Amino acid sequence: MSFSLPVPVRFDEADARGILFYGRLQELAHRVFEDFVVAELVSTWDDWFLAPDFIVPIKHAEATFHRPMRPGRSYRAELDVVRLGESSFDVRVRFVDDAAPAPVACAETRVSHVFADAQRFRKIPIPSAIRASLERHLASE
Amino acid sequence: MSFSLPVPVRFDEADARGILFYGRLQELAHRVFEDFVVAELVSTWDDWFLAPDFIVPIKHAEATFHRPMRPGRSYRAELDVVRLGESSFDVRVRFVDDAAPAPVACAETRVSHVFADAQRFRKIPIPSAIRASLERHLASE
Amino acid sequence: MSFSLPVPVRFDEADARGILFYGRLQELAHRVFEDFVVAELVSTWDDWFLAPDFIVPIKHAEATFHRPMRPGRSYRAELDVVRLGESSFDVRVRFVDDAAPAPVACAETRVSHVFADAQRFRKIPIPSAIRASLERHLASE
Amino acid sequence: MSFSLPVPVRFDEADARGILFYGRLQELAHRVFEDFVVAELVSTWDDWFLAPDFIVPIKHAEATFHRPMRPGRSYRAELDVVRLGESSFDVRVRFVDDAAPAPVACAETRVSHVFADAQRFRKIPIPSAIRASLERHLASE
Repeated sequence: MSFSLPVPVRFDEADARGILFYGRLQELAHRVFEDFVVAELVSTWDDWFLAPDFIVPIKHAEATFHRPMRPGRSYRAELDVVRLGESSFDVRVRFVDDAAPAPVACAETRVSHVFADAQRFRKIPIPSAIRASLERHLASE
Repeated sequence: MSFSLPVPVRFDEADARGILFYGRLQELAHRVFEDFVVAELVSTWDDWFLAPDFIVPIKHAEATFHRPMRPGRSYRAELDVVRLGESSFDVRVRFVDDAAPAPVACAETRVSHVFADAQRFRKIPIPSAIRASLERHLASE
Repeated sequence: MSFSLPVPVRFDEADARGILFYGRLQELAHRVFEDFVVAELVSTWDDWFLAPDFIVPIKHAEATFHRPMRPGRSYRAELDVVRLGESSFDVRVRFVDDAAPAPVACAETRVSHVFADAQRFRKIPIPSAIRASLERHLASE
Repeated sequence: MSFSLPVPVRFDEADARGILFYGRLQELAHRVFEDFVVAELVSTWDDWFLAPDFIVPIKHAEATFHRPMRPGRSYRAELDVVRLGESSFDVRVRFVDDAAPAPVACAETRVSHVFADAQRFRKIPIPSAIRASLERHLASE
């Protein structure tokens, strides 16, 4: 089941052409990811983003744009886990315009996160409690 | 031949872990792209970014991270055109750490730009003068 | 009566020291202002931010910091109109930490907005319907 | 003598009205400040921004806007120290448009920095070597 959230595009997130700057989409996607982490994966924000034992850097990030997204509009973000490996997992966030005549996906991101130990930055297996939670949000692509 | 430029990572471009926020890499890459456009493709910034006849939206953007990039450091950005189609082209920017024992690419972006007419947002061929300039920077991947 | 809203500080809004970058506070304040405009002053976002007749540029912006604000925390933003002139008005946003032993204002912004005609950028009086709404949120400082 | 630097405004730093977003001006000013710190005050970026002994948080930040600043243009930033106290100092950055018929200041920032010890966040005197360097850039307002 997707983790879903409304995401407004703000005045300052437009570019000189008046539409969402493409580079900003990952910021919007990461805000959704932060809320997902706290709601579904760990108890507190610090348990993930400032954890003393592990870090979860990003090794690859993609964004695909189908329609321009505009400031002053709100989009429905739908987050799914689309791959779950030994040390890494991929998250997809779709940004859907529900105000269009028929709901349409304007853009989507796909981001690969890798678990590593915080001291030496070496790959480690995903902790088992977190893996179990990720599985619950695993979607077939 | 690559278009090359030093790119500093700034204090505010770090995230809560103290390294460059992954979503910021496209902003850094786009700054290099803006300088490339003005140096190599058109006469003035407005001729591209506020052109009355065409717009060049982005349809796909990728970033791959090999090593953490840190605030207070400067990286050598190397921009190449890596695909040139009828209406669209792909730009790659590599961020190289020249301060490492051996120069190493810490991250790279690849972005697809599509020419469209400014009124109806329909795909149009790349204007021929711009195509000729893009060809001069076309690298084999 | 204050217009009030929770405002989370995000992972990427920290700086290299791990606290909210001071320059980001105005972005947070402006998000609150956008929501205030739509909830209290005009019918739709476009009626203010893309209005064909008037623009409302900012002539002065201040921020005062009392305590560090941290990513992963949410603050209660309280927006008040603190000055109402012929053509301009000042908005204050306080960011309150309700999770502290006693609620404490960590930071506040104060921003001066000026009405101008969209063609010639000359000062114009605040439209009367908007003035009436601003008055309802006018606080003594 | 002012510390001076060209500062371009980028495509993504515009807002939905096509001019520099007011909240971004502090980011531009801070980039100039970072370069000033490394050129004039300490040996390396880390000696200031990641110093183990002290931190230099900002307690107040102002920005005044005279004319709209536009993406695709470059401005001459002029940085001066405009107040030097026991523990704190104020920095002003003016953004001058040299392409105007007569050079004109489009905007300026003024930011108060306070030295504090890194452990307990208590005010400390400005270290004497840094104070001497700040004095060389002290301008009468």
